[in-house]
Amino acid sequence: MVSDGGREGGAGRRLVPMAWDATRGAVRLIDQTLLPSELKYIDIRSFDDMCEAIAMLRVRGAPAIGVAGALGIYLGLVEKAPGSAAEVFEALDELCPKMIGVRPTAVNLSWAVHRVRQAVERAAGVTGAGDCANGARPPEMPEPRGLPAAALREAMAIAEEDAAACRRIGEYGAQFVPDGGRVLTHCNAGALATAGWGTALAALYVAEERGRKFSVWADETRPLLQGSRLTAFELFEAGIDVTVICDSMAASLMRAGQVDVVIVGADRVAANGDVCNKIGTYGLACLAKMHRIPFIVACPTSTLDLSLGAGDEIPIEQRDPREVTHGFGRQTAPDGVGAYNPAFDITPGELVTAIVTERGIVRAPYGPGLAATMMDAARAD
Amino acid sequence: MVSDGGREGGAGRRLVPMAWDATRGAVRLIDQTLLPSELKYIDIRSFDDMCEAIAMLRVRGAPAIGVAGALGIYLGLVEKAPGSAAEVFEALDELCPKMIGVRPTAVNLSWAVHRVRQAVERAAGVTGAGDCANGARPPEMPEPRGLPAAALREAMAIAEEDAAACRRIGEYGAQFVPDGGRVLTHCNAGALATAGWGTALAALYVAEERGRKFSVWADETRPLLQGSRLTAFELFEAGIDVTVICDSMAASLMRAGQVDVVIVGADRVAANGDVCNKIGTYGLACLAKMHRIPFIVACPTSTLDLSLGAGDEIPIEQRDPREVTHGFGRQTAPDGVGAYNPAFDITPGELVTAIVTERGIVRAPYGPGLAATMMDAARAD
Repeated sequence: MVSDGGREGGAGRRLVPMAWDATRGAVRLIDQTLLPSELKYIDIRSFDDMCEAIAMLRVRGAPAIGVAGALGIYLGLVEKAPGSAAEVFEALDELCPKMIGVRPTAVNLSWAVHRVRQAVERAAGVTGAGDCANGARPPEMPEPRGLPAAALREAMAIAEEDAAACRRIGEYGAQFVPDGGRVLTHCNAGALATAGWGTALAALYVAEERGRKFSVWADETRPLLQGSRLTAFELFEAGIDVTVICDSMAASLMRAGQVDVVIVGADRVAANGDVCNKIGTYGLACLAKMHRIPFIVACPTSTLDLSLGAGDEIPIEQRDPREVTHGFGRQTAPDGVGAYNPAFDITPGELVTAIVTERGIVRAPYGPGLAATMMDAARAD
Repeated sequence: MVSDGGREGGAGRRLVPMAWDATRGAVRLIDQTLLPSELKYIDIRSFDDMCEAIAMLRVRGAPAIGVAGALGIYLGLVEKAPGSAAEVFEALDELCPKMIGVRPTAVNLSWAVHRVRQAVERAAGVTGAGDCANGARPPEMPEPRGLPAAALREAMAIAEEDAAACRRIGEYGAQFVPDGGRVLTHCNAGALATAGWGTALAALYVAEERGRKFSVWADETRPLLQGSRLTAFELFEAGIDVTVICDSMAASLMRAGQVDVVIVGADRVAANGDVCNKIGTYGLACLAKMHRIPFIVACPTSTLDLSLGAGDEIPIEQRDPREVTHGFGRQTAPDGVGAYNPAFDITPGELVTAIVTERGIVRAPYGPGLAATMMDAARAD
């Protein structure tokens, strides 16, 4: 399942983290919880297994869980084998909110699930946008045949669009990666987080294609270590110079002049440019500001949620404290002691130097820039 | 080896992390690498074992490794069984630099080792300060008998003085712990780091004695997790409300108004108030500044090194990258990927609200304040 990308340096391999395998009737995906020590593909054949894979972060990263969620809805429809279009919509009424609830902070998940539902509605001849909780119904129910297939087609379309968007994000973002520069990134906003080259890391892959030499500091990103496990893994596979640091080391590297730019992804961006991303992002943005280092956010327009005026309206998922206290196969805090484990934090737009999407680069003030980007995206659809 | 402290709340136990056991002819100490899952005491009977215990952080914390280093010199002298005073000084010429080199950043280690040497010199009738690399020699060598005992007495005196200093640091520091407050601390500057109640945590223990209610956020402190393993352990044992967080979560707690004060220890403080402490401290100080939160450093005067004009003169110990990539029984970064692992960072004095020692509270400008504190300490000796 690993193809040779033919790029120079290191192993130069590009990973295919997730794909629909029609022969097996399964979504094949890399179980990212086993990285970096084991590269294992698992077959997901049911809705519940996809929910579990998303909840347990076997598949993670905002764009990737959008694709995974969309494919999960398709798997759910196939499992339920609806005998009528009405049963298809009953199934969607149950499946869509359940899937969205698995990771409520990631806007891509609900966005992709809505898109699948709308595609099914279109295939059924319903007009107007559907709503997951209270879906529109066709006045005359057509045969159910073909409706699950419409869901699959839409999921595949989302994946293809994501791959294309990643490429364009990389092309816009590469300008922030100077030759000879030292880039710091947090969590994993790479190929393993998307259906393509990633968002933040796409900028690095394109910069490398263009012959620039640079090195990367990968924040390990506690508690789940996506930086050391995933970002270091995929950059090393691609032959890019990467060094892992603990999250707490970024500040002293900045003070020592060892960081030229910080590039991160996003899980959700509000209308005012506030960015919701992996816990630790906000602290990095503060430190970048204090040390006058550009702080770049790279994400597809599907991550923009202009219905939210500000980041503090974004619900922050609280995860199991055991990820903090029992995180390395060993108990690291005493029995009885609690831990606080928010998955994300909010970085105010004023700390962000630029937001890079597949539609271009937006700078402060973010309100008008992001609105124009979304109008542009809507026109293109 | 665990005594009941009789304090209210939780288990209310106070730990005795290190003690000389004359009956066994050994230093008994808690192997802190096994905490929090196992509370195990080990007997250290040789110089090399003490060096290993300090290098592997079985005993750690600036004041504690001072005491441990001093006891290690004594163990080394006993092992060598010198037949003359000249042989005692030959042994010291070998042992002292070796011990200091085990953890070169911690000024307390070299300070305590020097004190032991000087005590042996005094017992041998040599006047003037000794130097480890090029020690003074008595003109008439006395009998070696009694010289190792002088080393032991000095090591015990260092431990007793440290315990008393911790108590006074706690009394001065408690004023920074408001009733109902939320305190954030990093690494472990507690009982487990000293011969007494700790430095930063002494302030909490005294505040609790005085009936104040407060809660503590303990940064887990990657890579070695002294915060979750040790600080959470000893605060929980003492019945103080403690919650573990990942280091990257402190910023968002500050933004949410959930941190009233940051209190940390120090491994070394320069004449201008620059503080060398566990990696991650500098980032916290930056974040505290940005969020207008007091940032307090608590340490004994033995941690002050006024021979250094500024923090950047302090050598920063680089530790094994595997502490980052293979922490806690599991590989967390891919084979072949490097990691950067400095043990400490430097926090400029201008980010520090106050430095609390056993001689009182010093505020900026630190130059004159710290000099006066040291003169005061010298007069009291």
